[in-house]
Amino acid sequence: MEAPPLITLTTDFGYKDPFAGIMKGVIFSINPAVQIVDITHDIRPQNVLEAAFVIEMSHRSFPRNTIHVVVVDPGVGSVRRALVIATDNHYFVGPDNGVFSSIYKLSESLQVVNVTAEHYFLPRRSSTFHGRDVFAPLAAWLSRDINISKFGDFISDYVTLPMPVPMRPTASILEGEVVYIDRFGNSMTNIDAQKMDDLAPGITAGKIKIMVKSMEAPFKRYYSEGEDKKLCSLINSFGYIELFVISGFRYQCRRKNRRRVVLSHCRLPQI
Amino acid sequence: MEAPPLITLTTDFGYKDPFAGIMKGVIFSINPAVQIVDITHDIRPQNVLEAAFVIEMSHRSFPRNTIHVVVVDPGVGSVRRALVIATDNHYFVGPDNGVFSSIYKLSESLQVVNVTAEHYFLPRRSSTFHGRDVFAPLAAWLSRDINISKFGDFISDYVTLPMPVPMRPTASILEGEVVYIDRFGNSMTNIDAQKMDDLAPGITAGKIKIMVKSMEAPFKRYYSEGEDKKLCSLINSFGYIELFVISGFRYQCRRKNRRRVVLSHCRLPQI
Amino acid sequence: MEAPPLITLTTDFGYKDPFAGIMKGVIFSINPAVQIVDITHDIRPQNVLEAAFVIEMSHRSFPRNTIHVVVVDPGVGSVRRALVIATDNHYFVGPDNGVFSSIYKLSESLQVVNVTAEHYFLPRRSSTFHGRDVFAPLAAWLSRDINISKFGDFISDYVTLPMPVPMRPTASILEGEVVYIDRFGNSMTNIDAQKMDDLAPGITAGKIKIMVKSMEAPFKRYYSEGEDKKLCSLINSFGYIELFVISGFRYQCRRKNRRRVVLSHCRLPQI
Repeated sequence: MEAPPLITLTTDFGYKDPFAGIMKGVIFSINPAVQIVDITHDIRPQNVLEAAFVIEMSHRSFPRNTIHVVVVDPGVGSVRRALVIATDNHYFVGPDNGVFSSIYKLSESLQVVNVTAEHYFLPRRSSTFHGRDVFAPLAAWLSRDINISKFGDFISDYVTLPMPVPMRPTASILEGEVVYIDRFGNSMTNIDAQKMDDLAPGITAGKIKIMVKSMEAPFKRYYSEGEDKKLCSLINSFGYIELFVISGFRYQCRRKNRRRVVLSHCRLPQI
Repeated sequence: MEAPPLITLTTDFGYKDPFAGIMKGVIFSINPAVQIVDITHDIRPQNVLEAAFVIEMSHRSFPRNTIHVVVVDPGVGSVRRALVIATDNHYFVGPDNGVFSSIYKLSESLQVVNVTAEHYFLPRRSSTFHGRDVFAPLAAWLSRDINISKFGDFISDYVTLPMPVPMRPTASILEGEVVYIDRFGNSMTNIDAQKMDDLAPGITAGKIKIMVKSMEAPFKRYYSEGEDKKLCSLINSFGYIELFVISGFRYQCRRKNRRRVVLSHCRLPQI
Repeated sequence: MEAPPLITLTTDFGYKDPFAGIMKGVIFSINPAVQIVDITHDIRPQNVLEAAFVIEMSHRSFPRNTIHVVVVDPGVGSVRRALVIATDNHYFVGPDNGVFSSIYKLSESLQVVNVTAEHYFLPRRSSTFHGRDVFAPLAAWLSRDINISKFGDFISDYVTLPMPVPMRPTASILEGEVVYIDRFGNSMTNIDAQKMDDLAPGITAGKIKIMVKSMEAPFKRYYSEGEDKKLCSLINSFGYIELFVISGFRYQCRRKNRRRVVLSHCRLPQI
């Protein structure tokens, strides 16, 4: 049996309303042979940056040629463009508001199409629900092997958001920040293991001190190594430094007042 | 490849409990070749009217012959009847408590069967979980092309709920009300674009004033045209007047004390 | 068309984060022909006992040979073992932390494999997300008809949790407790209909008094028989005594301070 094409959905539509289900109805109307996977519909309303992180974290785990639809779209109905994107391994469909910023940065091969071929939209297009009227049909047609060039013109002036990157104020310090907090309260930073290794090769050797403001977050290998109710850190499953607290309160990191994660390269007493 | 039959689920079972998943297990046990789509499981507990609006909004986006299962069923286990319904384009399965009231009103062709053929239920039927024991198996058997007449007798005395309809107290006034509030706080009224046009042909021409109590909600084309933190209105993606507020508080409309949306046909100063 | 293999997911990953979606991406990467059903992702974080109840309640409604993946895994990354389990009718995949305790007790035939064949994991295995790196790939390979013996060694010293069981302090009294509360506030006890019948054959005959502390919870057949805002009881759809209150407050049962459900076999005045 040939593999059915795979479409993923990432939206801020929530689970209470029928909007995500309606998108699936549209997709199955155009291509009944598809498989659809929800990545999440609980992106915080209109938080384009959060959606950008989520699709960066997620897309790699899907098979080659998966079509990822992301609809977090505060500008729906206005002049913002609709995009279809092809990278080496995946396709992406969504609004041109920067939600694919990480994808642009990570992809070696990249084709971005500004969709102008309106006959791939639903015939009656609303100005408030392009998830249903624009992006679901585009994904469904794409899954039927319509070539990406048929949807419109290749562009290079797509919108990119400034994704927060770690800074290196001195040779021995890396400064990052929390960019995503999961349901367990685990707080992912933007500092990846590669940058850690650049700072101090062999990060498990205890040469690195992880500071959150003036508090140290000792480095562990996995969650259950954490000390009770104490802020700790580890390399998470996406390869980034993550702060966590086990069996106690959640580590609450207010978005408005982001705490700087400061990583100091220094010799610790025990070495 | 032939299209697999499609079954949708709309319930008040929530996402925390395994009830919706269990219904899918029953469906796949009877017909493994089906595709199942969740419309929502977050209908407010036992709110039959909300489920009626949700299935009205949603069903049209699904392909012909989709089977829509709706289980919001305060009377489970009592004498209320189980129904299988065929319209021109879709099938519906659920309790006879008015949850399909909009479907009855909208459908040109309509066949409603009171299910009496209990061999299409699970062999051991509980008195508290007909989603699993009655409605899931009915939908699964229907998806295997069992003719609707096999399930029982055609009836015409099915239960209908009085769905709130707009009133026209004078020639220049339409009075409606909020019938659904989505996760963004957008508040859908029961006044559709057609009724607006009857009131004043060419609704975009600015001849209409939309009042919520004594507050005007200026008419916009899409959300991002809205004025900051100010109540505005537009025609939403289902063709109804909707109230919204962007980038501020949600427009909170208490169900207990419904606010009348009054739409006055009048010349505005700027015209 | 042959039935596609079926995999279910039960986790504490929630709906806000992309973790459950990512597991599906991994599964489809290994076996694109599978169907995946969410049982729930809203197990309370790290509550292994709740997951054990949920999979007990749910698995029976799925077809023969369904593969049930349960990931509630506080010990992820530590030395706890990964298991693949075969019973008469189903397969189970998850951590060896007691989450399958009910399954062990209920199954006549039982094979439990401690997974040591690491080539069935993802090549790069994190220490924090075995849902993605270990359990999703194991389920996917199992769905491709890899024999269970290929994954590792059969064991019999798997972890079991003490599941709460009812006590029988005197011949006329059964004492149980609330083990699961659903979204409606219905509170399932661990007293099944069989035990009720042992206590007093013919439980509907009114010979049994159901007491919650000093309050009687009259026995009903279905929810809408309940008296307004009064604690009542019934046999629920899983065959257990359940406490409920209709159209009023939820019956709040704090987990910390579990109330004993005392069932007294006695003649009631009206008999």
